[in-house]
Amino acid sequence: MSNMDEGLKHLITKGVVYDLGQPLYPGIPHHPLHPPFGYVMARQHGDVIFKEGASSANDLFTLGGHTGTHLDAVGHISQDGKLFGGVDAKSVQDWRYGLGQCGINETAPIVARAVLFDVPGWKRVDVLDKGQAISGEDLEKTLGWEGQEIKQGDVALIRTGWGKYWDDPESFNSHEGTPGINLDAAQFLVEKGVRFVAADTTACEVVPSQTMEVHSFLLAQNGVQIMEMLNLEVLAKEKAYASFFVAIPLPISGASGSPIRPIAIV
Amino acid sequence: MSNMDEGLKHLITKGVVYDLGQPLYPGIPHHPLHPPFGYVMARQHGDVIFKEGASSANDLFTLGGHTGTHLDAVGHISQDGKLFGGVDAKSVQDWRYGLGQCGINETAPIVARAVLFDVPGWKRVDVLDKGQAISGEDLEKTLGWEGQEIKQGDVALIRTGWGKYWDDPESFNSHEGTPGINLDAAQFLVEKGVRFVAADTTACEVVPSQTMEVHSFLLAQNGVQIMEMLNLEVLAKEKAYASFFVAIPLPISGASGSPIRPIAIV
Amino acid sequence: MSNMDEGLKHLITKGVVYDLGQPLYPGIPHHPLHPPFGYVMARQHGDVIFKEGASSANDLFTLGGHTGTHLDAVGHISQDGKLFGGVDAKSVQDWRYGLGQCGINETAPIVARAVLFDVPGWKRVDVLDKGQAISGEDLEKTLGWEGQEIKQGDVALIRTGWGKYWDDPESFNSHEGTPGINLDAAQFLVEKGVRFVAADTTACEVVPSQTMEVHSFLLAQNGVQIMEMLNLEVLAKEKAYASFFVAIPLPISGASGSPIRPIAIV
Amino acid sequence: MSNMDEGLKHLITKGVVYDLGQPLYPGIPHHPLHPPFGYVMARQHGDVIFKEGASSANDLFTLGGHTGTHLDAVGHISQDGKLFGGVDAKSVQDWRYGLGQCGINETAPIVARAVLFDVPGWKRVDVLDKGQAISGEDLEKTLGWEGQEIKQGDVALIRTGWGKYWDDPESFNSHEGTPGINLDAAQFLVEKGVRFVAADTTACEVVPSQTMEVHSFLLAQNGVQIMEMLNLEVLAKEKAYASFFVAIPLPISGASGSPIRPIAIV
Repeated sequence: MSNMDEGLKHLITKGVVYDLGQPLYPGIPHHPLHPPFGYVMARQHGDVIFKEGASSANDLFTLGGHTGTHLDAVGHISQDGKLFGGVDAKSVQDWRYGLGQCGINETAPIVARAVLFDVPGWKRVDVLDKGQAISGEDLEKTLGWEGQEIKQGDVALIRTGWGKYWDDPESFNSHEGTPGINLDAAQFLVEKGVRFVAADTTACEVVPSQTMEVHSFLLAQNGVQIMEMLNLEVLAKEKAYASFFVAIPLPISGASGSPIRPIAIV
Repeated sequence: MSNMDEGLKHLITKGVVYDLGQPLYPGIPHHPLHPPFGYVMARQHGDVIFKEGASSANDLFTLGGHTGTHLDAVGHISQDGKLFGGVDAKSVQDWRYGLGQCGINETAPIVARAVLFDVPGWKRVDVLDKGQAISGEDLEKTLGWEGQEIKQGDVALIRTGWGKYWDDPESFNSHEGTPGINLDAAQFLVEKGVRFVAADTTACEVVPSQTMEVHSFLLAQNGVQIMEMLNLEVLAKEKAYASFFVAIPLPISGASGSPIRPIAIV
Repeated sequence: MSNMDEGLKHLITKGVVYDLGQPLYPGIPHHPLHPPFGYVMARQHGDVIFKEGASSANDLFTLGGHTGTHLDAVGHISQDGKLFGGVDAKSVQDWRYGLGQCGINETAPIVARAVLFDVPGWKRVDVLDKGQAISGEDLEKTLGWEGQEIKQGDVALIRTGWGKYWDDPESFNSHEGTPGINLDAAQFLVEKGVRFVAADTTACEVVPSQTMEVHSFLLAQNGVQIMEMLNLEVLAKEKAYASFFVAIPLPISGASGSPIRPIAIV
Repeated sequence: MSNMDEGLKHLITKGVVYDLGQPLYPGIPHHPLHPPFGYVMARQHGDVIFKEGASSANDLFTLGGHTGTHLDAVGHISQDGKLFGGVDAKSVQDWRYGLGQCGINETAPIVARAVLFDVPGWKRVDVLDKGQAISGEDLEKTLGWEGQEIKQGDVALIRTGWGKYWDDPESFNSHEGTPGINLDAAQFLVEKGVRFVAADTTACEVVPSQTMEVHSFLLAQNGVQIMEMLNLEVLAKEKAYASFFVAIPLPISGASGSPIRPIAIV
């Protein structure tokens, strides 16, 4: 049981539900340090047949907290050995139990206002360049172009146009870099009081990054959780800049993140 | 992109979000024919350290489409070799690709009105008995006791009281049976036009069942999907009988189901 | 470090190595109560490229202790709640740690004399019938027909001819039953002092079985471990009745079994 | 069915079997680009009880071809996009099917003479230093010190002393490097005609390496497969320099490697 601002319901005016989750299947883009999505049927129709002829199929998946469209737990990132709030990472982590603190199980279902930052839209391009950084000023100008404002408690949806590469892992995780926010943009968002930052790329922050400074700043220093690999293409096309947003992480004890399939309703 | 009835927003009056998902960890109750939930850290803080001292943790999970709180795909059940709509099960299933038709990837995010059937509440008991069947008349009387009605397109949440046994797999999947709806109750719900039937037990239908007749009737004959292993305890305690309900299956290609963490907002 | 009878080396006379393991891939036959074999590449060539142009691939598998050709741990089976030696099963098992006693990690690499019981050969059939039981007398007569004897410490390889169905799971795990040894045959083998009993079927014992009495007798009462799903076809064709046998379970802490790929050298 | 030199049997003189496999459990050392070893019970004793009181336990593992003590497939490494023999890596790899050529399924069970290179023994140290390279000359002098020779077709077991760090992943995969052979040593071994090179570290070659040049030389250029993470401690202590060696990879279709538990018999 948690609470939301009941006034958010007025964001729902048309009853259109946008699906911001990318499809899951073996071969989706994934960070090389993360496990892949795996799938196998565990039982097929016909393997076990009940009296009167019913049968059932089921399956087995392998995935991790950062597979496909997902939400990082606060404890995903440490800085100098510390998680957000000064928690000592090594003393709370365990191979079999995960994170004793700051795990994804501590994140309640997310129901919030979301604002889309359609950066390529503002820049009048289809997609940002490989390795292109998005600054705080870029975000501010994008908002102005959209005629929107960002509020305390909002979810910031940062579009780079990258979502269209989902079926092409080599482009999605290009060796030449991916676009994303820089530290300046992260600071802008934190100052505005956003609760979550979401992007359509693997890393949210501009890549290559030697330091993961945006991850460190948002998660380890501010406890602002990051969503990655969303599909923001249709939302931008339809100019659905402000929406009633729902994302619900699986309550996995101690996990460093969870797959999600966020929706935005207008 | 899908559509919902925008008028449902008026179900949100207080901004209270009920979490209907059970926690996920190794050792949760699971059907013996289904795979278990497994967890292991894949990388710990300190394993790889970026310049300036940031580090990250991630994990690997094993689970299936029917692990923990979940939603069955239409194609989970076949009757006499046929899926809903007369699809031949054997000709669309593949070990590596799953169900070519009727997979969970065909289910859009669910945003709907939900109605709780607090059967133990009506019966003035804490929890139903092992193996106790719930009939259509029971459902009708429960609704009357609650002063509610069920409408076309609703999600029916069937409470047996079983949710409290989550941490005790032997009770949750008792060898002596579990309570649940019978075929008569399923017919009642289909006649009322419900789109989804959800329960707080492993099987939704009364167990033992030699035939899985409720699964066959709902999924294979009517395409009405089933949710199982929800936690409906707090919802009942707070008498939140009608709610703005959201459940979002992961869009796993060909899967027979997906874990979900549904929410009910009032 | 363990010990074997060094005289066994004289079984090696030709230097022919028979591979008794069945291939592993998604879709191999598996018992419906056991997890499936799953495979996915975790990284492909080209995902990460080292200086000078080297790259690497790796993969992720899901499997269990009873997947494919495998060896049961002593603790796989309990009788009336007790493992072999009177160990209380519930007090030593843990979801994350497995079996604190009688796990497969307690089994040293197996180097032993093996004797093939080519039952279909003796019966002059290609393959035994569905549900056909093999008795102690059958085993004795098969040995006589082969001109072999079984000795203390041997591995008994029981051929039904079933190995040829590996690529056809419906035949391999037929709903109409599978051939295998009965309790009488198991008693015969224990009296002879065999250390391991191996078969080319899923269950080793004749199926259907309501009681798993052969498993219970061998594992829970005698600590004689069972191997299943071997491929004994070529060994029989070549009449390699006695051999230098090696099977090496993976040393998985607490596991109820392990995949193996046994070899027989003559 | 494959062939070995039957004369190797004379290496067996005492009947002592050395276990060269490291134990497998969640938390073992693993390369950060590889998946972790995961374990969960899939069914516990008591979950399903057969007539007459027998019950069984089983489990589910996650692991990859390079988890724990393992053998690399020829196709694990590409150089400039090519596998051994000039096979184009991208055209034979598939997320669900793995490597269509050069997979571990092409490796027959290994029965061969093994020679231990006890480098720390020769150097009169307990363990080599972090990042210490082993050259061809080092190997030659080690052999001389042992009074051994290496022959065509042998397995070379390269000891660094690292095996004792297995229970301490931070030491095993030290950020400051690990000892191992350099390119010169790899060339020495290939000139001698060894079929397999095995080491007690994660990478076999000296780390850090920017190029993975030893992997590239052995696998991609010469088709000489590498074993890693063996435990060679007892073998060295007992001066079992030449042995009858058996290692049997699981026959996983298309896999880039397989866990193994090698044994050395003297």
